[in-house]
Parts: sequence; C-alpha cells; structure tokens
Amino acid sequence: MKNSALSRLGQRAEAPPISWLMDVALSRPQLISLAAGFTDSESLPVKDARDLLNEILKSQKSGQAALQYGSTAGDPMLRELTAQDFRLLDGVLEPDKDYAPERMVITNGSQQMLYMVTEALCDEGDIVLVEDPTYFVFLGILQSHGLRGGGIRITQDGIDLEHLRAKLEALKKSGDIKRLKMLYLVTYYQNPTGMTTSFANKAGALKMLREYERAAGHPIYLLEDAAYRELRFTGDDVKSGLAVREFADRVIYAGTYSKPFATGTRVGFGILPEPVYTAVIRIKGNHDFGSSNLLQQLIVRAITSGKYEHHLTALQLRYAKKAKTMLAALKKYFPPGVTWWEPKGGLYYWARLPEKVHSGVKSKVFQAAVARDVLYVPGELCYTDDSDRSKPNHEMRLSFGGGTEANVRSGIERLGGVLAEVMGA
Amino acid sequence: MKNSALSRLGQRAEAPPISWLMDVALSRPQLISLAAGFTDSESLPVKDARDLLNEILKSQKSGQAALQYGSTAGDPMLRELTAQDFRLLDGVLEPDKDYAPERMVITNGSQQMLYMVTEALCDEGDIVLVEDPTYFVFLGILQSHGLRGGGIRITQDGIDLEHLRAKLEALKKSGDIKRLKMLYLVTYYQNPTGMTTSFANKAGALKMLREYERAAGHPIYLLEDAAYRELRFTGDDVKSGLAVREFADRVIYAGTYSKPFATGTRVGFGILPEPVYTAVIRIKGNHDFGSSNLLQQLIVRAITSGKYEHHLTALQLRYAKKAKTMLAALKKYFPPGVTWWEPKGGLYYWARLPEKVHSGVKSKVFQAAVARDVLYVPGELCYTDDSDRSKPNHEMRLSFGGGTEANVRSGIERLGGVLAEVMGA
Repeated sequence: MKNSALSRLGQRAEAPPISWLMDVALSRPQLISLAAGFTDSESLPVKDARDLLNEILKSQKSGQAALQYGSTAGDPMLRELTAQDFRLLDGVLEPDKDYAPERMVITNGSQQMLYMVTEALCDEGDIVLVEDPTYFVFLGILQSHGLRGGGIRITQDGIDLEHLRAKLEALKKSGDIKRLKMLYLVTYYQNPTGMTTSFANKAGALKMLREYERAAGHPIYLLEDAAYRELRFTGDDVKSGLAVREFADRVIYAGTYSKPFATGTRVGFGILPEPVYTAVIRIKGNHDFGSSNLLQQLIVRAITSGKYEHHLTALQLRYAKKAKTMLAALKKYFPPGVTWWEPKGGLYYWARLPEKVHSGVKSKVFQAAVARDVLYVPGELCYTDDSDRSKPNHEMRLSFGGGTEANVRSGIERLGGVLAEVMGA
Repeated sequence: MKNSALSRLGQRAEAPPISWLMDVALSRPQLISLAAGFTDSESLPVKDARDLLNEILKSQKSGQAALQYGSTAGDPMLRELTAQDFRLLDGVLEPDKDYAPERMVITNGSQQMLYMVTEALCDEGDIVLVEDPTYFVFLGILQSHGLRGGGIRITQDGIDLEHLRAKLEALKKSGDIKRLKMLYLVTYYQNPTGMTTSFANKAGALKMLREYERAAGHPIYLLEDAAYRELRFTGDDVKSGLAVREFADRVIYAGTYSKPFATGTRVGFGILPEPVYTAVIRIKGNHDFGSSNLLQQLIVRAITSGKYEHHLTALQLRYAKKAKTMLAALKKYFPPGVTWWEPKGGLYYWARLPEKVHSGVKSKVFQAAVARDVLYVPGELCYTDDSDRSKPNHEMRLSFGGGTEANVRSGIERLGGVLAEVMGA
C-alpha cells in the first residue's frame, strides 16, 4: 500500500522557498532580514484602522452589514470605487466597459487572484511565460499545477520583446503554442528586480501575443500583476495594459490594497475579461464564496474618508527614504563589480554579482551571510525551469521594506563585508 | 479558433445554485427567503467586535502585529486555543498529538479547508462518497474538479452503514476503489437535513473505510465537516471522529468561527493528519499565504475575553427559539403527508413531501412559492450525481437562520398554502 492518497497537485506542492528563509530568520532573532517582502510595521495605519472600524461598528446597521456574509464577487461599493480609481489612473475619463465594476472581483490578497486565474486557464502540461526572473510564489502555483514555464529576458523597460518573439516562434514550430495560455508580468517595481514595464512594452507584448493566437487556437492572455503599483516614490504612474484599448479583452489585471494600506487585511482585487471573469467568480464561489465583508468595509471607509490616500502618500515618502538609504549603503559597502538598477517604487533592489560568484542557498556567500546574521533572497529562487538556459545563480533580492533605516544600512554593510571577502576585493 | 482558453476546471465550474436563488431574492425585496443559510443579522456581535478591535488597535504593538502579514498556517495563539478547545470538547484531557496545534491550519471559512483538502487528495476522475443529500457547495467543488460522487443514504443517526458497505463492495468489485479518496460527512445538524451523526456511526464508518484500504492501495479519509457543531440548542455535544482514537490519522476535521461568531469574519480551521497537513499548508501558501491576521486576532480576543462563549450561549438560545417557531408553523400550516426530523442545532429543517409532489426549480410548487414571495432550497440541488438512483425531487431545505420569527412563521404559512393547493389537501 502506498502510504499516501495525495493527488498529483498534493504531491507536487512544495514549501515556498521564502518559508524556509523565514524559519532561518526566526531561529536567529538577532538576524537582519533583507529577504522578507514585508511592509514596514512602523508604517501600518493602526490609528486609522481603529477609527474606521469604530465608525463601521458604532451603528447596528453598518455593523451588522459588515459582520454578515457578503457576495462572492465582493462588496458592490468597493468594486465601484476600485474600478473608478483604476479607470481614472489609466486616463480613461468616462465610464467604460473595460473598467466596469461588473468585471471586478475582490480576493484574499492579489495572490488568490493569481491562483484562481491559473486554475481557470491552465490544465496540467500547459505553458505560462514569465519574466526571467519573476515572483517566486507565482512559480510555486505553476509548479504545483504541473505547468511548464518559460522565461523571457528583461531589460530596464520590460521584457525583451525580441526574446518573446523567439520563444513564441519556437513554441509555434514545436506545436506547443497550443498549450500556451498566458504571459505573466509583474509590471510595476517588479518583484524581484524593481524594474517597471513601460506602456509601450505592454502594448508591444499584447500585439505580439495576438499574432500567435491563430496558431494557438485560443486567446493568449496577459496576466498583469500590479501589486506594487501604488508604492511609487518617484516618476509618473504608467498606464496599465487595460489602457491598450485594442487588446483590453486580453488583459487580466491583479491589484491589491494589502501592500499600500495594511498587509494584515489581505484585500486584493482583479479586473478580468469574459469568459475568464465568470470562471473565476465560480471558482471563488467554491474557494470561499466571498472575502471577509468586514475587511472590505474597512477599505471602503479608508478610501471614502481620504485616509487611504493620506496614508499612501506618507508610505511613499517613507519607502523613498529607505530606498535612498539602501542605495547609499550599496554604493558605500558593496565591492566594485556588483551592479543594480534604481527602482522607482516597490520594496526591492536586485544586486547582480559577477557571474562566477554564486549567491544560491548552498553558496559560500549565502552561508557566510547567515553566519553574519543577514539574510537575502537568493536570485536562483526567482527563475522558472527553462531548458533554454541554466538557472542564473549570481543575484540577490534585497528588500528595504520591512527593516528600519538602521537595519537596512547595517544589513547592507554586513553583506558588503561578505561579498568583499568572497570576491577577494 | 476556440473563443476560450479556459482549463477543464474553468469550463466545468458552475454557478452555485444558491447564487441563482439569491438573485431571485434580490429581485423581489418583499420575498421571504427560507433558502439562505445566513445567520441572523440581529444576532451579530457588533458591540463585542467593536470593543475587541479597539483593544487590539489601541496599542501600537498589538495593532501593528494585527495589521502585518502572519504565517501561512495561522496565528499560533489561535491554533493553540482552538486545538485545546476541541481536544477538551472531545473529552481528551491531556495534550495529545491528534489535537496538536501543529496539525492545525486557519482558513478563510471552513469552505477553503474543504477546497484545499479536495485539491490535496483528488485527481480528476477520483471518487468521493457523500451523504445523500449533502452540502451543495461541496458538490460544486467536486463537480468543478471532475470528480465522481456517490451518495450514501442517511438515517436519523448518520449514514446507513450497510449502504456504505454495499457501495464499497461495488467499488472494490469494479476496481474503482483505487480511485476512492474520501468520505465527506457533515456531522452536526447537517446541511441540509439537520441530522446529527452519532459517535458510534462515525466509528463504524472509519472502521469500514479502513477495511477497504488494502484494496484501494492507499488511505481513505473521513472529511468531517463540523461547521454547525457550535450551533447546538438541545442535547449533548457528540465527540468528533478524532475521538475514535484508533483511526484519528484518517480524520480531517473542518470547523469554523464564522457561523458561531460572525459570518463576515470568515475564519475557519482544520485539524489534519500527515501527509495531508503538509500538502494543505503548501497549497494554502499558494492560495494566499495566510488568512487575515486582523480577523484572527479578533477571534483570539473574543475567546480569551470570554465574549465568544457568552455570545454563543445567547446565539444558541436564539436559534432554539426560532427552530421552535418553525416547528410550530410546520405543524400548523403544512398539510398531512409532509414529514421532517427535529434538528438539535444548526439552521435547517428538511421537509419531505410525498414522492410524487415535485419541489425542484421547474416544479409547480417552486414556481407557486416564488409567486407568493417565499423561497426555499429545492432538495434536488443537494444530491450528487449517482447512477445507482435517480435524483430525489420531493424535498425542501427550510432555513430558520436568517429571518425574524415573524418571517419564519409567515414564510411557512405561505409555503403551507402552496403545498395544500398543489397536493389538493
């Protein structure tokens, strides 16, 4: 007898690499973690949340509504407000079907959106193209569902469209294009590299995907993960893929209120075209038939009271400062030969070591870093399996989100010391 | 070109029947719904929630902790408290591995637990046995995953063990037993019939499942859905399947704080044996990497302050009263020939009409009921597809949860009028 009755998915599901890193962090309380993508505890809106929840719960009527079941798609007011905000952010001034509340679903963080979209579109063996590197928890979703990945190289501007073309051509040639369901991009201050996809790049990708739909025999979607969009601290906002109006019916937009407001609330959302929308709503019905009404009401009140906007502005300034601190420390403590891009928002720097200097979990650098009580996310964890290349193993994701400025500075100093030693500088 | 890129799951997923019923209800505001499994809005603990959230958010320290990410498995304190409560409820007085916090996961309502367990155990084509009838949203999970069901007849005491034996024998004979992964039972004040499974019945079922494991080639689990356990208003609590100590490693227990405290909080939990526990935690990592910390803190404070227990006692009295009201109305207004069992808790009566009187969505009874502004859940929606029988179509689920006592009385009066007419009484 087998000792397990687990399904293929149950057998395949792996512990996310970050949970192992978090265990390391917990076992060494003196350790500075530049690994976790946490937001800053000091910045969390404790008083705002208290005031807003008090307002909601001070009347029986609004209190009861918040403590009762809601609908599967989410609170109508929150969907209305969110749809409108994103429409205006994209420069679409009149109500428009591509940004209609009827295309919106409220989820448990944007993570649940990513999961349900994958369920709605992908059968075992299907293919999803991703940035090389990309958000590792999304790779966990793909892996557990038995999906095949494919990495598209990135530039400071978005994916390398010529590389996307080459991948699509190869898939067409092999016939595997019929299994290609979507391209997943983290378009704002990307996790892990901090890179932002330009609007022209999104438009180019969407146009190119459309060209291959005939060969695929079905629509090929762009899943745009905009989890960090609001955490902008310099430069202008970039319009979303939905604003490429010609292809808006191929864009699935995933956003969140967790990171800009409070991670503990876990309120995300999606804007989806048919027939994906209907499938996702039905899947959500089976997952949990609706996210917590109380948390949704909290976000509604935060938006309508202006507290959300006010908090966000303060948060952006705070992260700008911490990013600056990390940049200064990188310049001061990291040896020559290490490079990075400057993010315009988000939580991360992505440091590239010389190729021969490994940064993976088994590397000298990683072991020495842990011994000196500093932790980062090894770059190798952010790459999908792709037979066209071996996994790069010389990069590190460095988060300035969770720690204090002093922590960020000391963490980079310690890490710089390790690198100088290993690189023999 | 196909116009859809949907996966098999995405194509299969159906709108839950209840959402259609809710649309009917919304379009006729004067309608009395005995369909929704809502809890009573008047009973929701608005003041308690306000006081508890104020406590959490009045200090920066506890406030920040509540608004930050938590862990995937859930708040350690909530897992500890929950594990201990259920151990004591089951009469196990010393700490015990079968009730260890390390076997617990906090989920978005118990619904998410049911979903993840199904994902962890079942591949397309696998078989899950259920009560005949059972909770229809669980049937939606099975259907969307392409699973095969099988209905076991029930008595007032639990499933008919002889029928279970016959099903298992048939599966063994056909070889399909290799695809059988679990038996799903709603063991307390069952949705939809109100029936409670006796401890002896659980023990009998577990023993019988074990006998067939050799033929299956793997463990066969009991998924015990105890969502209504706390909503008891008469009689004693019944021990869970975990208390059948010999087979505790085959019991997956799903519970919730949503119904006993506030449905809008969506905090459920599971107690799972290995290797299912590890698989579910990993799946949860991909779903949402942890439920809202704020809501978990709310439940922790509710328990430790005694407010949870206090609220629950009041809730039990309230439902007892409403159940009595419904019973009196059933006796007064329903024609002879309609039968029901008396539930000892939960939210439902299950009325059985004479077999020739249909109650389905296309039936005269249902149409006439809607025309008279009263809604119920047609019994046919609660039956899995099972080629061994045709779907019964002469029952109705009647909820006394959501409405006021006056509503419950009028609803049954209207429905009684419809039945008297159709049955020619």
